[in-house]
Amino acid sequence: MKYQDLRINSQRMQADFDALARIGSTGDGGVHRPALSPADLKARLWLRKRIEDSGLEFRLDPAGNLSGFLNCAGPTAPTLLLGSHLDSVPHGGRFDGALGVVAALEALHTIKEAGLRLSANLEAIDFTDEEGTLVGLLGSSALAGRLEPEDLQKPRGGREALLIGLEHAGLSETGLLAARRDPHNLAGYLELHIEQGARLQKARIGIGVVTSIVGIGSYRLAFIGRADHAGTTYLPDRLDAGLGASAFHLEAQHLVLSGFPECVVNIGEMNFEPGAFNIVPGRASLSLEYRSPDTAPFERLETALLAQARQIASERGLGVEETFLGKHQPALMSPVVQSAIAAAADNLATSHIPLSSGAGHDAQSFARLCPAGMLFVPSISGASHSPREFTEWQDCINGANVLLQAALNLIS
Amino acid sequence: MKYQDLRINSQRMQADFDALARIGSTGDGGVHRPALSPADLKARLWLRKRIEDSGLEFRLDPAGNLSGFLNCAGPTAPTLLLGSHLDSVPHGGRFDGALGVVAALEALHTIKEAGLRLSANLEAIDFTDEEGTLVGLLGSSALAGRLEPEDLQKPRGGREALLIGLEHAGLSETGLLAARRDPHNLAGYLELHIEQGARLQKARIGIGVVTSIVGIGSYRLAFIGRADHAGTTYLPDRLDAGLGASAFHLEAQHLVLSGFPECVVNIGEMNFEPGAFNIVPGRASLSLEYRSPDTAPFERLETALLAQARQIASERGLGVEETFLGKHQPALMSPVVQSAIAAAADNLATSHIPLSSGAGHDAQSFARLCPAGMLFVPSISGASHSPREFTEWQDCINGANVLLQAALNLIS
Repeated sequence: MKYQDLRINSQRMQADFDALARIGSTGDGGVHRPALSPADLKARLWLRKRIEDSGLEFRLDPAGNLSGFLNCAGPTAPTLLLGSHLDSVPHGGRFDGALGVVAALEALHTIKEAGLRLSANLEAIDFTDEEGTLVGLLGSSALAGRLEPEDLQKPRGGREALLIGLEHAGLSETGLLAARRDPHNLAGYLELHIEQGARLQKARIGIGVVTSIVGIGSYRLAFIGRADHAGTTYLPDRLDAGLGASAFHLEAQHLVLSGFPECVVNIGEMNFEPGAFNIVPGRASLSLEYRSPDTAPFERLETALLAQARQIASERGLGVEETFLGKHQPALMSPVVQSAIAAAADNLATSHIPLSSGAGHDAQSFARLCPAGMLFVPSISGASHSPREFTEWQDCINGANVLLQAALNLIS
Repeated sequence: MKYQDLRINSQRMQADFDALARIGSTGDGGVHRPALSPADLKARLWLRKRIEDSGLEFRLDPAGNLSGFLNCAGPTAPTLLLGSHLDSVPHGGRFDGALGVVAALEALHTIKEAGLRLSANLEAIDFTDEEGTLVGLLGSSALAGRLEPEDLQKPRGGREALLIGLEHAGLSETGLLAARRDPHNLAGYLELHIEQGARLQKARIGIGVVTSIVGIGSYRLAFIGRADHAGTTYLPDRLDAGLGASAFHLEAQHLVLSGFPECVVNIGEMNFEPGAFNIVPGRASLSLEYRSPDTAPFERLETALLAQARQIASERGLGVEETFLGKHQPALMSPVVQSAIAAAADNLATSHIPLSSGAGHDAQSFARLCPAGMLFVPSISGASHSPREFTEWQDCINGANVLLQAALNLIS
């Protein structure tokens, strides 16, 4: 049999997907599996068992990345990684990340059963904390040698949450920083993921070949005013930190809409202190995240947002604290990998188009390290990070077969 | 000795004030004694002991109001209440409420020692939850017969917090609703309080004779949008509930500044859900409180704020949930009590001016029930609901003596 005729076992993959969706299920189609939470740890245990049941070699690195290894090229050959992540955002969907891990496992299982001899070994991998509950791309950054000690000092989920999470998973900061692998041993990186946008569905296309991944930056901003009695302090006499935060929220939207049409900005959290009906907020903190597919607007947007925050604070007599939480540059995907994916789709008679990714992915950790690429399958209505997240099962199977064939195109 | 020559014991009152300020102290001059919290319960125990040590009769009603009773007019005579509250806002000041309770206790102690025979009995009272951690004016409303069962169903602190607080204090909903006293037994109500504004200090006046207390209304508003992935959903495609909340915040300020100069509005809490860096807020809730010294603008402001919220929601494709949490109408103070306070200040050679109160007070519960009045002492810089809250001790003593003399003017 030619390798081009090999197909994954769709029933086995569906059983895996459904079993995983039950772990941390929120009962409405979604899952709640924040990184290193009890549900995420349970999902990791489940994956370990599935790896071992599939006859793959179980591996766990010091960054908590867990994988199934298939020796199909001998001990001196490099490894092609197929991966994604089991963790979810709070009350997220059951496809984001999970589909890529299940498909990677299924691809290796299929290749193992076929007994193929290839030019690289294979590893199906679940990366720690892709979503950034604690740090963001934690596991893949660590493996790629891009994690710096300062990334762990002021993580976006808070330092305490990070330390608690690491302890629960039996991990350590020292381990995280020592998890780097020699890039010479990496043959490449491939990831299947849902699109999380509606472009494929609207265009009735089966596969998106990812060309680049947006850059993502995040800050915590806090406006500082003065807590006062909300009944006895007339509005002109107040230094209301909350108003600074609300004004910034609206202005940040306006800034992106008017000058950065390819970018997005999000304020997903907002907190007023001391936090009472009858006290003027003395402090208002918010989470700021911005994204750009290209490097130049990425830097300009960051500068413009911070300038906006300072100007609003200055106009309103407030202070502003800026805590930089991390930045991932826009990442180009490898043309070689893009070609391998497109050829696999063609071979499977599946339509495909090139797409940029508005979401961050573990693939970006590998962009400057080895040939890295991603493929997307359609998301219904583009819903994601939500229990409404859904991809037709046939599209999932199709994506897994393209993943399998793209891997084989690269290392046959 | 003429009763006009009677003075409180300032050293004894200072010892009481300082002892009370240590209970729930936050170490920065402030106190954290939310209603029925452990610190508030400890302060109540302390007051009970001081009442008993002073030789007054300790009383506790089914609304948790605790008092010291002085029989100085016989069993058939009505009672003049002198009161305030021991509870504080979260991380508040040590004068708000506490000064009035300590001064009332000291006034009764002084009258008892003088052995005066008066036309009404006296009661120094601490009202449960003036600040509204749970319900707002809970104890005084209950005593005045103004508490309705529905006030306890959706309290602004949340139903669960109310039930927990009541249990900790050994109180019950049935008790709260049965705490009404017959108004025929009330000779009147008098309260000493800090101004919580800077008008007295700026005018270098010792006593504010309160003419009216602002009306206060509160709502919890929630804007409902759609949670989406913050990277893959472009801004025009979002239904961002947080933007609705921020826009309302700014518009509510504008509304009051432009059309309601005597009123105030405050958004002291803001919460986005699900609450993550990379999820567009699907729900944004906020606390809304507005105040007016007069009835007509009070009603107009409420209508205008709700219309504003609905308009913003409609313009942005969002839903809006309005939860009405309670309303206290503006309350006029009794002219008879105002005269008694002014005469007492004149007798003590203390300057005084009429003032309206921007803060709510237990006195408003009695406004339509019996002759009720309040006097203010100066707040430095007007700071309140904050550890910066401060009143010169001489002003506190002075206020306590005016309280004592005003009471005697009313019932001698």
